Amino acid sequence: YSIVLLPGDGIGPEVTAVARAAMESVAALSGFALKFSEHAFGGASIDRFGEPLTAETLRACQASDAIFLGAVGGPKWDKAASRPEAGLLGLRKALQVYSNLRPVSVHPALAGKSPLRAELVAGVDMLIVRELTGGIYFGARQKREDYASDECAYSRAEIERVAHIAFQQARLRRGKLMSVDKANVLETSRLWRRVVSEMGARTYPDIELGHMYVDAAAMHLLRDPASFDVVLTENMFGDILSDEASMLPGSIGLLGSASLGDTRPGVFEPIHGSAPDIAGQDEANPFGAIESVAQLFEAGLGETEAAARLRAAVGAMHEAGDWTGDLGGTLTCSEAGIRLIQHLE
Amino acid sequence: YSIVLLPGDGIGPEVTAVARAAMESVAALSGFALKFSEHAFGGASIDRFGEPLTAETLRACQASDAIFLGAVGGPKWDKAASRPEAGLLGLRKALQVYSNLRPVSVHPALAGKSPLRAELVAGVDMLIVRELTGGIYFGARQKREDYASDECAYSRAEIERVAHIAFQQARLRRGKLMSVDKANVLETSRLWRRVVSEMGARTYPDIELGHMYVDAAAMHLLRDPASFDVVLTENMFGDILSDEASMLPGSIGLLGSASLGDTRPGVFEPIHGSAPDIAGQDEANPFGAIESVAQLFEAGLGETEAAARLRAAVGAMHEAGDWTGDLGGTLTCSEAGIRLIQHLE
Ligand SMILES: CC(C)[C@H](C(=O)O)[C@@H](O)C(=O)O
Ligand SMILES: CC(C)[C@H](C(=O)O)[C@@H](O)C(=O)O
Repeated sequence: YSIVLLPGDGIGPEVTAVARAAMESVAALSGFALKFSEHAFGGASIDRFGEPLTAETLRACQASDAIFLGAVGGPKWDKAASRPEAGLLGLRKALQVYSNLRPVSVHPALAGKSPLRAELVAGVDMLIVRELTGGIYFGARQKREDYASDECAYSRAEIERVAHIAFQQARLRRGKLMSVDKANVLETSRLWRRVVSEMGARTYPDIELGHMYVDAAAMHLLRDPASFDVVLTENMFGDILSDEASMLPGSIGLLGSASLGDTRPGVFEPIHGSAPDIAGQDEANPFGAIESVAQLFEAGLGETEAAARLRAAVGAMHEAGDWTGDLGGTLTCSEAGIRLIQHLE
Repeated sequence: YSIVLLPGDGIGPEVTAVARAAMESVAALSGFALKFSEHAFGGASIDRFGEPLTAETLRACQASDAIFLGAVGGPKWDKAASRPEAGLLGLRKALQVYSNLRPVSVHPALAGKSPLRAELVAGVDMLIVRELTGGIYFGARQKREDYASDECAYSRAEIERVAHIAFQQARLRRGKLMSVDKANVLETSRLWRRVVSEMGARTYPDIELGHMYVDAAAMHLLRDPASFDVVLTENMFGDILSDEASMLPGSIGLLGSASLGDTRPGVFEPIHGSAPDIAGQDEANPFGAIESVAQLFEAGLGETEAAARLRAAVGAMHEAGDWTGDLGGTLTCSEAGIRLIQHLE
C-alpha cells in the first residue's frame, strides 16, 4: 500500500512520527508492506510554496491508497493571504471524502479522567457521522468592508450519500441512528430531515431512527451520552458536536477520525488541532493519531486484523496507565510511541 | 408596569402561572403595581387564529413594558403550514431584541446534580450573550424539491450593537470577554472577529478580550467552565453553546434569559423548551421561569431590588432542597410556586 503522510503544523509532525512508526511496526507484524511519501501541507506548505495544498501534493494524495494527516493551522498564518485550513477543505473537496466518521468511546481505565461523572461516561460508545464536503463550509460567500455572508446549501444527493453511510454503520453497531438538525428554523435542515426520514422508512426500516434539534443534542450529549449509537449530522453541526463529544473520554488527544468517499484514498487524522502552545515540546498525546491509524487500516485498507492488533496495544497501555501528561501520565509523545511498539511486539 | 404574558405551548402555561404569581407577590412586597394581559402565542395561537403571532398580539407586546414568554413548539405543529417557532422569530425581529443574555451559574447546593464533576462546576458564573436577530436564522432561503439553502449574513452594525452589550456586561462582571466564531472557515466570522477586535482595542481596552473557535468553545465549556466570564457569539452558535452550558447546573429547567433591544419591551423566557412529554402533568421545573422574572425585573424594568428579593428566595429554596423531580426533589411545579411565595413572604 502507498501511504501519503501530511504532518502539517504545530504538533502534527510529532504525532505523525509516532503514527508512522506504529504503521511500520503493525505492517511488519501483519505481513503487508507500506510505502510512505511525505508532503508539506497547511501552514508548512504556505511557508515553502506559498499555498497550503500544492497541485503536486494533491496528485500524490490522489494516487495513494490512504492519507494520514497530522494537524493544520496556527496563529502564525492568521493574517496570511491563504490559510492553512483552506488546504484541508480543498483536500476534502478534491477527494470527495463526504463522510467523516468520529467514534467516541471511553476506555474504563479512563472514566475517571472525564469532566463528566464516571457513571455517566461508563458505556459511552457512539459514532458521529459528519457530512464533510457540503453545507456552509463550501457555500457561496460574500465579503465587503462592512458586510459578510456565507451560504449553507444541501442537495438531496449530498444528504443521501452520507446518510447511507450512517444507516449502514448503525446496522454494524446497535441499530440506532439519531439525525441532528435544526428543522424548526432552517430550510436545509427540513430537507435533511425529510430525506433521512424517507430513507429510514424505505430502505432501513430495521434501524431505530430518531431526530433531534442541534441545541437539544448539545444538551443530551452531556445528560445521557451512553444513549447515543450513531449520530448523523451536517458539516457545521458535526464540527461543534464532535468536539463537544470529544471531551467525554477526558482528552481530545485520544480520538481519531476517518474521512471517506466512494473510493480510496480516505483521509485519517486525529481530531485534535495543531496545539501551537505545546508544539515542539514532545508533549502531545499521540493516541488520537494511533487511533486514526487503526481507522486507516480498517476503513482505509480493509486490514481489520492490523487495526485490532493496534487497538489491543492501545488498550494494554490504558490498563497500564502508560499515558502522556494530559491524562496525568509521565510519558512524552515519542516515549508513548516507543511503549506502543513494545506492546505491539 | 404593563406586562404581556405569552404562555405558549407544552409546559409554557404551567411555568407562566408560577411566574405570574411570583411577579404579583414580589411587586406587592416591593411596592409597585403590575398590569397583566395574556395572549395566545406559538402553537396555541396557530390553533386559535391560524398563525403563531397575530397582529393584535404583536401590538399588545409593543405597547407593553416587558414580555414574559413560557415556551413554544411541539410535534403537533411539525407539519403545520406555519410553525410556532416562526412566531418567536417574528417577535424577536419585530421588537429588535438583538441581544439574548443567558447567565449560567451553579448554586453550591446543586453542584452534585451536574453531569460534570462537582469540582469543575463549583464557581461557574458565566453570561452568554447571543446575537438574536441576525445570522442564518433570518437570512435569505431557498427551498426546492431536492435542494435547499439558508444564508448567514451579518453587517458591521449588527455585530457592533450586540458586542457593545457584551463588553459592557463584562465591565459589570469580571472584565473578561470571550468572542466565539469560526473565523478559520466563515466570512461572517472573520468580519465578526475583526469588528470585535477593533472595538476591544478602541473602546474597551480595559476588557480582557479573547477569541475562540466554536468547536474549541464546545470543548472548553466542559474542560474548564469556570474560566468563562462573558461569552459573545452569533445567533446559531449561541443557540448550541448556551444549551450545552445549560447542562452545567444539572437541569436546563433552571435557567432564564433576557432578550433586549435598545428600548423596552424586552422578552424574558426560560431557556427550556415546551417539553411536550411532560406537559399538563404539573411536573415542570419553574425555576427557569422564576429566574426569567428576576431578569425581567432587573434588565426589563430596572427594579433591581425586586430581582434580588426573588433570587434570595430561590437561593433559600435550593438550600432547603425544595426542588422539582428533575433535581431529585418531590415538589410539583405549582407546589414549587407556592413554596417560593412562602419564602418571599
Ligand atoms: C481546521 C478546521 C477547518 C476543521 C473543520 O472545521 O472542519 C477542524 O475543526 C476539524 O474538525 O477537522
Ligand atoms: C425554538 C427555537 C426557534 C429557539 C431558537 O433556536 O432560537 C430556541 O431554541 C431558543 O434557543 O430560544
